[in-house]
Amino acid sequence: MSLGSQNLKAFYSAMDEILSFLKDLKEKLSNSEVDKMIGMLLEAWGWGKIVLVVGAGRSGLVGRAFAMRLMHLGFRTYVVGETITPAIGPNDVLVAISGSGSTAIVVTAAEAAKKVGAKVIAITSFRDSPLAKIADHVVVVPGRTKTAVEQDYFSRQILGIHEPLAPLGTLFELGTAVFLDSIVAELMYRLGKSEIEMKYRHAVIE
Amino acid sequence: MSLGSQNLKAFYSAMDEILSFLKDLKEKLSNSEVDKMIGMLLEAWGWGKIVLVVGAGRSGLVGRAFAMRLMHLGFRTYVVGETITPAIGPNDVLVAISGSGSTAIVVTAAEAAKKVGAKVIAITSFRDSPLAKIADHVVVVPGRTKTAVEQDYFSRQILGIHEPLAPLGTLFELGTAVFLDSIVAELMYRLGKSEIEMKYRHAVIE
Amino acid sequence: MSLGSQNLKAFYSAMDEILSFLKDLKEKLSNSEVDKMIGMLLEAWGWGKIVLVVGAGRSGLVGRAFAMRLMHLGFRTYVVGETITPAIGPNDVLVAISGSGSTAIVVTAAEAAKKVGAKVIAITSFRDSPLAKIADHVVVVPGRTKTAVEQDYFSRQILGIHEPLAPLGTLFELGTAVFLDSIVAELMYRLGKSEIEMKYRHAVIE
Amino acid sequence: MSLGSQNLKAFYSAMDEILSFLKDLKEKLSNSEVDKMIGMLLEAWGWGKIVLVVGAGRSGLVGRAFAMRLMHLGFRTYVVGETITPAIGPNDVLVAISGSGSTAIVVTAAEAAKKVGAKVIAITSFRDSPLAKIADHVVVVPGRTKTAVEQDYFSRQILGIHEPLAPLGTLFELGTAVFLDSIVAELMYRLGKSEIEMKYRHAVIE
Repeated sequence: MSLGSQNLKAFYSAMDEILSFLKDLKEKLSNSEVDKMIGMLLEAWGWGKIVLVVGAGRSGLVGRAFAMRLMHLGFRTYVVGETITPAIGPNDVLVAISGSGSTAIVVTAAEAAKKVGAKVIAITSFRDSPLAKIADHVVVVPGRTKTAVEQDYFSRQILGIHEPLAPLGTLFELGTAVFLDSIVAELMYRLGKSEIEMKYRHAVIE
Repeated sequence: MSLGSQNLKAFYSAMDEILSFLKDLKEKLSNSEVDKMIGMLLEAWGWGKIVLVVGAGRSGLVGRAFAMRLMHLGFRTYVVGETITPAIGPNDVLVAISGSGSTAIVVTAAEAAKKVGAKVIAITSFRDSPLAKIADHVVVVPGRTKTAVEQDYFSRQILGIHEPLAPLGTLFELGTAVFLDSIVAELMYRLGKSEIEMKYRHAVIE
Repeated sequence: MSLGSQNLKAFYSAMDEILSFLKDLKEKLSNSEVDKMIGMLLEAWGWGKIVLVVGAGRSGLVGRAFAMRLMHLGFRTYVVGETITPAIGPNDVLVAISGSGSTAIVVTAAEAAKKVGAKVIAITSFRDSPLAKIADHVVVVPGRTKTAVEQDYFSRQILGIHEPLAPLGTLFELGTAVFLDSIVAELMYRLGKSEIEMKYRHAVIE
Repeated sequence: MSLGSQNLKAFYSAMDEILSFLKDLKEKLSNSEVDKMIGMLLEAWGWGKIVLVVGAGRSGLVGRAFAMRLMHLGFRTYVVGETITPAIGPNDVLVAISGSGSTAIVVTAAEAAKKVGAKVIAITSFRDSPLAKIADHVVVVPGRTKTAVEQDYFSRQILGIHEPLAPLGTLFELGTAVFLDSIVAELMYRLGKSEIEMKYRHAVIE
């Protein structure tokens, strides 16, 4: 193994693959799926409902980045697994992120949310996945995630038994990151800057 | 509701109850259970095995405080749910903390650990609990936690659907904190200061 | 180094030392300091102000356990460093926990809180520490934490450069845990169970 | 404010802007800067040195996603702020991520790392920033982050006093995410799949 300078072939190939994937993302997203998700989020905002975000591993990190922005916009938003995450109830919204749609911790969260009357938005690559079937609304974000009959995936996940290498998950995660940041832009636009600031001040300083 | 100065009756009552509980703790712990746990941890240390810690809610925080000390002592230790938690395997050790012994996320972690050949140390108030039954070794730490036929406890936990108030869990959590810090003292003693420092430098600076 | 069964001498000595320390804690706490802290928290509750908690290392874990209980009681509470922690402002309350009172991340947080008009409650062993000097109110919780001319403590802390072993910090951390759980009991008593539930439902389900 | 269906104008504009930015990223990255960073990481891998990652807010989340992959590749990697992050020392590597290069928590971490003899890789948009000046090596990732004479940015950050809305930071964060995932691909290639697996097993199961 040489550690010396090389031509970065794999580096540029990966970047090309990622960019090419993201470029296609726009066409592959369903306008009506996106629109309905935005409507559900705005409704939660309007009624002061909670938007709770859940995801495992890197999908969880993408979810947290989204939650940060929602908080900036004045949403009552929380992340599953953090210290002060409150109970949710009827008409609160769970944004559940899982490429395979079968990550057990995410599916379990979605089931629990349904039981208490909350609404579930699934962000996944597979419309037939367990997560998608439970959800009130599905936004399909492509990726080359395997459908994964991963019976005990959750067990492995919570023990940190990751796949040795899962570069294919990368496309779903980056695609979802770009998708959710675009959602934030639309939310900003629809809420209106002045309203946002008002809400922001209201939420923060009172 | 008066916000003015009062006699702090509930404050002192709670403190008395906690201290009285902790005082009894020493007699209620089984010498042989504690001794075996220490032996298992030292064995993991000696063989460079991982000690993985898991707990939900406040029990999870107590577990993290323990993991910090293990790390200082040169253990290869990780906490379920953090970013860089690696896979575990045969003869690694899972320290699973749950007062009721039925917290689903902890039970699931224990099951998964058993599957890959890791050893499970359960710290719980209930010797008959699901967690205790799975474990290779149980240390009973009393507390007034209910046995809790909490069918969907996990679902509620991961959604942040906490009990409105669970002051009874407090005794288990504080008792476990005191218990685990005493374990740390014994580990320090047995490993010996100089060995610890050696190991510490080795692990950290190389 | 023998890994075999031993008499657990260090284990029981440490437990005795901890329990003896905690027993004295009650006498060493100032009634008026505790009372004023409770008053400030209730005032924040009453006005819907944020209670933000900060601490480094194990003190941070103790702070999170406190925040969880405050959340159960219907407080608007957050922990520094988590994803959705919002901005604070005038008359919000920062609970800053540091045995030495000189942990840089905690002192910096306290300074920033003062700038925006928030009130700072310091929980520390040292009335003359930088943290105590900044604070609006100090509750002294004893411990054998050193005064620590820890110029660059923060730098070391954020890089994970912990003390190799700091069992002395343990007493402050456990004492603060018992102290804060007793505060929770008093808050429950003063707010009244029914009010709590009302507030709880209100905050969570609406 | 209408919550009804709309044409998602802002959504698609934002997505276009992000994709256009990412497309240019490839040309804007310096081949030699990237190559040197990869060399430093491989050297850390080869010598069993720690790769510690630090970033604030969303940059911190991007850093964690990178750390997860490094862990999969068999690196000894940790994230500043998590429970079991160990001390670092001479020739360990700190990957410090900050668009502005002046985020106080990141700069402080970099200073501390330099003191103990660790090497600092700065990922920032500004070659003249405080972070870049401290670093042993700088990789410039563009973004429209302001240079930000943010004297007390850190104070604000640790208190959760975020900018009300910082969509400009988004480009740096997404660009860095794509950049770091491409780094991972190159590391995989250079280490070789079989070596990776060997190392992985070694690190995890032993």
